Amino acid sequence: MKNLVGACMFGQSGGPTSVINSSAAGVFIEALAQKNITKVYGAANGIQGILNENFYDIGKEDEKELYLLKNTPSSALGSVRYKLKSADVDDTDYKRILEVFKKYNVRYFFYNGGNDSMDTCNKISKYLLKSGYECNIIGVPKTIDNDLYGTDHCPGYGSAAKYVATTMMELFLDATVYDKGQITIVEIMGRNAGWLTAASALASYKGLGPDLIYLPEQAFDIEKFLIQVKNVADANQGKCIVALSEGIKTADGKYVVEAIADSSAAKDSFGHTQLGGVAATLAGHVKEKIGGKVRAIEFSLMQRCGAHLASKVDVEEAFEAGRVAVRSACEGNTDKMVVFIRKPGKEYEISYELMDIELAANTEKKIPDNWILPDNKGLSQEFIDYALPLIQGDCKAPLEDGLPRFAKLRKVKV
Amino acid sequence: MKNLVGACMFGQSGGPTSVINSSAAGVFIEALAQKNITKVYGAANGIQGILNENFYDIGKEDEKELYLLKNTPSSALGSVRYKLKSADVDDTDYKRILEVFKKYNVRYFFYNGGNDSMDTCNKISKYLLKSGYECNIIGVPKTIDNDLYGTDHCPGYGSAAKYVATTMMELFLDATVYDKGQITIVEIMGRNAGWLTAASALASYKGLGPDLIYLPEQAFDIEKFLIQVKNVADANQGKCIVALSEGIKTADGKYVVEAIADSSAAKDSFGHTQLGGVAATLAGHVKEKIGGKVRAIEFSLMQRCGAHLASKVDVEEAFEAGRVAVRSACEGNTDKMVVFIRKPGKEYEISYELMDIELAANTEKKIPDNWILPDNKGLSQEFIDYALPLIQGDCKAPLEDGLPRFAKLRKVKV
Repeated sequence: MKNLVGACMFGQSGGPTSVINSSAAGVFIEALAQKNITKVYGAANGIQGILNENFYDIGKEDEKELYLLKNTPSSALGSVRYKLKSADVDDTDYKRILEVFKKYNVRYFFYNGGNDSMDTCNKISKYLLKSGYECNIIGVPKTIDNDLYGTDHCPGYGSAAKYVATTMMELFLDATVYDKGQITIVEIMGRNAGWLTAASALASYKGLGPDLIYLPEQAFDIEKFLIQVKNVADANQGKCIVALSEGIKTADGKYVVEAIADSSAAKDSFGHTQLGGVAATLAGHVKEKIGGKVRAIEFSLMQRCGAHLASKVDVEEAFEAGRVAVRSACEGNTDKMVVFIRKPGKEYEISYELMDIELAANTEKKIPDNWILPDNKGLSQEFIDYALPLIQGDCKAPLEDGLPRFAKLRKVKV
Repeated sequence: MKNLVGACMFGQSGGPTSVINSSAAGVFIEALAQKNITKVYGAANGIQGILNENFYDIGKEDEKELYLLKNTPSSALGSVRYKLKSADVDDTDYKRILEVFKKYNVRYFFYNGGNDSMDTCNKISKYLLKSGYECNIIGVPKTIDNDLYGTDHCPGYGSAAKYVATTMMELFLDATVYDKGQITIVEIMGRNAGWLTAASALASYKGLGPDLIYLPEQAFDIEKFLIQVKNVADANQGKCIVALSEGIKTADGKYVVEAIADSSAAKDSFGHTQLGGVAATLAGHVKEKIGGKVRAIEFSLMQRCGAHLASKVDVEEAFEAGRVAVRSACEGNTDKMVVFIRKPGKEYEISYELMDIELAANTEKKIPDNWILPDNKGLSQEFIDYALPLIQGDCKAPLEDGLPRFAKLRKVKV
């Protein structure tokens, strides 16, 4: 498409990460430097902010604060979970977006998120094209789940993986400190892909990780799980550390929490099934069937917003992904997502490329079967070689009073 | 007591911290340098290791690894929770300790722990004195709870407080990212004293902390809690962040989990009361009574072993406390605990002093009433001024493959 002149709009979508704001910084700093971009807008709460005409003039921010975004976790503009209907079914939202884009002469649109957000990007792109409104649209990938198709890895994954591996090493030292046994079950995010849980294998690679790892890529067998845990504990003074994905399911497709609830009649006095986290549920089950001290731990939101443990590689790549998106759009590209292609060779190096956004939308990338060791013993050397370069280096916010000095945006409404 | 010549024994006890090994490093490095100390032993699993004659020859460790202990969380020698009976009731253990100390000519004993450990130290000290066996005994304080009497603060607290404050700031950004509301309830360690939960007020001081803070120092009123949460959420787009101590109790002395279980008949099908964490229990209660999205988060073991977020002040003070213990014992002191006395004045500075160990044993220091703001609104400026100097600076293990390189001890058995 053409080399357009006009405003640019940027939005953040889906669950936050430690580095989604680093991509925002990349987009903003690059966009403010581009001659063809007349105004830089940041949408409050993603697509919702566009629909509601609620966005900020990024040109009014201090450059220093924009750079501080690189180390500020979560989504500084606010996020949203909003799935656009197909334009064929209901084009109300699309008409509204077109109206707003026309009103503010938005000729560049950058959207930062995971599968669903790339789907949103794709749908808007197709609609605007059909409407004859010229606007270059580039998706910037982001997800701790690392499940986006077509890119070697996703910004956000490296930092979350570093959080998981580091924290698992520390937990290992804590959970094995007594001469008495303890079975420790750690729940890690990931509904359908186990990339983040797999990162706990990096701790095992250092000798301080889980004994057993359960991923959503493989059917979960509760009886087998109990036997495996008992075998490890029996051989190891009653100590066993387990890492598992929140999304593990039994062979018949049920979440483990539901499966256990169904089987053990753990219902409350009103007959409701009590649903907790999968680690807590399995901990209760292990306590009942094996006994001894059992502890469930959830990395919860901390694993996705723990920017104090961000990987330098991840922070810089996320920043660069934002810059590449803007440069590519200004060069006339549209309807693409930025992807990372790993160069062959021993030294880790990536190139930033563009891929048709349609390919990224709604496709999930899972861990290759042959990277998963049998009997839940963890991940193969291929996975270690894949993941280790992504967690290299430290990069965090400067300290002020011993605490992180995160970006403070003015957020001047347009 | 005299300037004794003989071996020294060191043990770690109670729950781990991020810096308990820093004190171990201080003890080991100083002891290895003292002329009067002929051998340096480290007891496996504290007092248990002495009773079982299970200890390591620290002289056989690499000095480099001993220095790496400064940034290695948890208890490198293994810990124990073992309460000695009174010697008047049953002196079996004491006789055994005396026997082992005689066999290895142990003339210096250093024990690193909290109230219970200081009680152990005190009992052994009194027994050996009565038995006429000369041994200089010094306690080294340690607890994330910060509840030891007689010291301005305890090694371990600063780092745990830094973990809590930093993580709370990150969580704040994550938990408020959507335009939809969410009530977030964060559970922090502390059975009887709220020092660690209070550290979340440091995040509020930076504008990114909890709206409401509940400490065990004050009776917890479930109805009042619901009203306070609802009021904050109503005024704030449904968003409210709560920090609370695991040990909060109702006015009649019941733990909140028990109190709610009693009142709401949340029993399972076998009639057992379902006990979970207090945050999870209150989250369920809030969901039932107020509705909306509610999330319970536990900082769990991470808050006490998160050495990657250790405070430099804490690491150095813990190390120095170990060195001071050894030097003081070699100068003839015994039956004391090392304490930190804060010097008056604007600049933070402490001196290392000795206090009768009996005073430390089994006395709990709580947060002064006048530091606690009314209506659970947090902590006063006095608390901020007290706590802020303790979390200053970063100090963590060197990275190897992007992950912490913790100490690897040879652990050569004696």
